[in-house]
Amino acid sequence: MSKKRVVIAGMGFGGLRASKVLAEKDIELIMIDRNNYHLFQPLLYQVATAGLEQEAIAYPLRGLTRRWQGDSFLLAEISGIDLNDKCVLTDSGKVPYDYLIVAAGSRTNFFGMESVATYAFDLKRLDQAEDLRNHILLMYEKASRETDPQKKAALLTFVIVGGGPTGVEFSGALRELIVYVLSLDHPAISATETRIVLVEAAESLLTAMPDELRRYAHDKLRSMGVEVMLETRVVGATAESVELYGGAMIASHTLFWSAGVAAAELAGNLSGVERGAAGRIVVQPDLSLSNHPEVFVVGDMACCVNNGVPLPMMAPVASQQGQYAARMVLARERGKTLPPFHYFDKGSMATIGKSSAVATTAGFNFRGYIAWLAWLLLHLYYLIGFRNRLVVMMNWTYAYWFQERQVRLITAKKRRAVPV
Amino acid sequence: MSKKRVVIAGMGFGGLRASKVLAEKDIELIMIDRNNYHLFQPLLYQVATAGLEQEAIAYPLRGLTRRWQGDSFLLAEISGIDLNDKCVLTDSGKVPYDYLIVAAGSRTNFFGMESVATYAFDLKRLDQAEDLRNHILLMYEKASRETDPQKKAALLTFVIVGGGPTGVEFSGALRELIVYVLSLDHPAISATETRIVLVEAAESLLTAMPDELRRYAHDKLRSMGVEVMLETRVVGATAESVELYGGAMIASHTLFWSAGVAAAELAGNLSGVERGAAGRIVVQPDLSLSNHPEVFVVGDMACCVNNGVPLPMMAPVASQQGQYAARMVLARERGKTLPPFHYFDKGSMATIGKSSAVATTAGFNFRGYIAWLAWLLLHLYYLIGFRNRLVVMMNWTYAYWFQERQVRLITAKKRRAVPV
Repeated sequence: MSKKRVVIAGMGFGGLRASKVLAEKDIELIMIDRNNYHLFQPLLYQVATAGLEQEAIAYPLRGLTRRWQGDSFLLAEISGIDLNDKCVLTDSGKVPYDYLIVAAGSRTNFFGMESVATYAFDLKRLDQAEDLRNHILLMYEKASRETDPQKKAALLTFVIVGGGPTGVEFSGALRELIVYVLSLDHPAISATETRIVLVEAAESLLTAMPDELRRYAHDKLRSMGVEVMLETRVVGATAESVELYGGAMIASHTLFWSAGVAAAELAGNLSGVERGAAGRIVVQPDLSLSNHPEVFVVGDMACCVNNGVPLPMMAPVASQQGQYAARMVLARERGKTLPPFHYFDKGSMATIGKSSAVATTAGFNFRGYIAWLAWLLLHLYYLIGFRNRLVVMMNWTYAYWFQERQVRLITAKKRRAVPV
Repeated sequence: MSKKRVVIAGMGFGGLRASKVLAEKDIELIMIDRNNYHLFQPLLYQVATAGLEQEAIAYPLRGLTRRWQGDSFLLAEISGIDLNDKCVLTDSGKVPYDYLIVAAGSRTNFFGMESVATYAFDLKRLDQAEDLRNHILLMYEKASRETDPQKKAALLTFVIVGGGPTGVEFSGALRELIVYVLSLDHPAISATETRIVLVEAAESLLTAMPDELRRYAHDKLRSMGVEVMLETRVVGATAESVELYGGAMIASHTLFWSAGVAAAELAGNLSGVERGAAGRIVVQPDLSLSNHPEVFVVGDMACCVNNGVPLPMMAPVASQQGQYAARMVLARERGKTLPPFHYFDKGSMATIGKSSAVATTAGFNFRGYIAWLAWLLLHLYYLIGFRNRLVVMMNWTYAYWFQERQVRLITAKKRRAVPV
């Protein structure tokens, strides 16, 4: 009897963890991704704010898979899955499977607002982070030769939508880039001429955090010079303005959107599956599809209800689900099963600025320097690859001591293509 | 009396050195470049062969100029120079000058072969190095799933034109990438299936080097597995083939061109100047234009005859000329002059592979490990910025010990735009 074939579709946090469980087992493992690297998405915002080079947060997948005898990696775009025929459809042909772990992640959710989708920047891919960095630096270059005060103010106004960890971390990092670096680079522009506006629809930032930490983050951002607008919604945009609910306009050339995520397009291409909020695929307690026990969906794509609410779209959930699905495959092959998936919540954290972060774990809340240090160490730990850790640590140390960010390069002057 | 204004057009090696002489002197200095960074072009080939991240060889110009009180940097594309009206024409308006140092460098010379210009890769800009790296890695990905042996062979054939230092260094680095890294990444492809063909029109490689070193480089490349074709010319190309003079075709998806350079387009936009070979502008012994003593041309753009032949288009020439022109401006302002420009030739070198290089200086020839070590140290020394030196040194050390190159990322799958 030939070996059973397990296909992993997508090598983000969920797929990566699943692959480590399944590698060199008595199955044939095929890993598919559209990129030849695993991307450490939580640090994309640091690439966008000139703190890290893009290569430091990407790890070449073949550097991992080449050690695994008999397993293989396929660089391909997945267009769909034929659940009845048991094969994955890609731009390199059909890939049949016996078991499938779908881990294609998420995309930004603009909630159908076309103008926002057209003009906003978001951070899901490496090239988007580079584009946003180029754009921010270019706004400063343009402002430094702009003589009309109104136009100059619009170039120097940055609107960030979404008060979750990404919006908070990006706001703080952008403010530090401006105060410590760009203000010195451009003597003609004072840091006080620059506005960073953080817009959140709810009544507080970091709604998943305890009240004490929310207030700390809010106060800290305001003391750094970030304007926080709560209970405010962005409803439209042009290249030079952002429209708020109620009709108010903010003159700004930069809109960063981190106010929503939805399951990757692939979720919409599957027929006969039940979908929950944000297009996520509803899974059984063992993460499989109800009619297809050989197919597991993990991570951002999966709508896995825990204590009555779907689990959040976060890296730790994806990792734990990837590991579970892989173990479940191995258990089934041995004629066994596992207890239902249970998410172990280790807590959450967000960094705000130098020596300042918030973290909550096991009922304990941390803030300030100790939370910041924990944030640094955990992110280094979860980053893949010795060399990447070294490069990131070097950048952080350098930034800490010299208040300098040397990756402030405008590597392309073209505006990114309008997203589909 | 207001200060005289000195404009530097182009911040490559020539412009950078000139700016360091003129900074914070009793003049107004304006530095113009189309990029916001100085690019260390001699290491572009290492970015293209996945040895270095692109950010490591670029230094943000404002990181330099911000220290200089009263001087300024302008990010702008220069379209022409009005020599009579004394102003530089840019996409950000006219910039008048009292003195001008033109240092806009060079572009690749395809000698009018349109098919080669369309399909060949060349290395002048940072994005070209990234594009070439993406392309090389993608050829391996495509080859790994190609079943037709002929098509597979074409995907794995890399043709490099030009046996000067760039062609030699690129060939060696590509061969090492293939043998030490890609062959392990792709178990389905043996290193012996891959061809690297180095094509040179002259009768030897490294024609500027002593005979002993030419032969060493040739033998070393061949022992590494690079095919060297001397007295051979490439006359055409398609996306999948390279045509040689005489009609022979090599089936190959990758053509790298390092067989010629010409003065930057800007040289062609100047009226009333004398041009030498490769469109370079003929300069007086003090590097100024004959009718415009207030305009100096330095580096690759300048045709400066020394001992009867024009000086080569190399970084050391550009640096020395930039320094001379800047000193000449200061001397003139003091009512003085300087003796004619004299190029001090410190020698030349090229690295071939790990522990292997050739170097010649002051009549002494070096090869092997000692030349390689000297090459490493000199390139680190000339690289701008402490952080960049650190990152490059780390990458080199890592590559040396682990035979590994982690920057093997395909960051975009689009083929680069066809060059204009």
